Amino acid sequence: MIKRLEHLGIAVKDLKEANALYTKLLGVGPYKEEAVESEHVTTSFFQTGDSKIELLEATDPASAIARFIEKKGEGIHHVAFETDNILEEMKRLEEAGFRLLNEQPKKGADNKLVCFIHPKSANGVLVELCQSILEEE
Amino acid sequence: MIKRLEHLGIAVKDLKEANALYTKLLGVGPYKEEAVESEHVTTSFFQTGDSKIELLEATDPASAIARFIEKKGEGIHHVAFETDNILEEMKRLEEAGFRLLNEQPKKGADNKLVCFIHPKSANGVLVELCQSILEEE
Repeated sequence: MIKRLEHLGIAVKDLKEANALYTKLLGVGPYKEEAVESEHVTTSFFQTGDSKIELLEATDPASAIARFIEKKGEGIHHVAFETDNILEEMKRLEEAGFRLLNEQPKKGADNKLVCFIHPKSANGVLVELCQSILEEE
Repeated sequence: MIKRLEHLGIAVKDLKEANALYTKLLGVGPYKEEAVESEHVTTSFFQTGDSKIELLEATDPASAIARFIEKKGEGIHHVAFETDNILEEMKRLEEAGFRLLNEQPKKGADNKLVCFIHPKSANGVLVELCQSILEEE
């Protein structure tokens, strides 16, 4: 089950400049920065109500974020929806005809397990499913 | 002050098909459909947690949504942040260097006053400010 819009991911060229701009826009600074080495990005997170804004800067020209910016320019890259059971949601959505981009959940930023759905399955929108990883059971 | 991510606007070619797809994705149907004649769009809204997904189909080839799809294809069109005082936020953001696309708030979908910020001001993101119109004072 999808619980909420967890965050919106925005691809930026310069994280430091974008942090300053989004701090002005939202009236609050990022609550953390985090490198995700497997995805070749550095990220920052802003809280806004019950959702977050994630800014993503590529650390490698071959990364998905660098290629996105090269093709489309800076802008909104993905929307992430939270679920309590990512495996169940992946199964449900695959059976409903959505094309998953990873067969198993992978470790994303902000202590999450994530799975992406192909934009061709969702009116051009790159959708992320995410589930928080519990620190302690 | 920005309170929360109010909604995410997604440009689609066929609202009926997109409604069916997002109903499958989110596990819940749209809670309303609404035509916004001034913007030449028909919209539908889905609740997800504290935020909404707005799907937008153009009703006129000259509308902003039709031109967006022609140029970029279907996909995420804008992100809307809620404020309790849109005039104050417009003034604050203009003074902070953001370029507003309308000088006065205008009537948008879902009983809102809205103002757009130019994507060039915000890392390629079309940002909407919105304030709910109170039915009764």
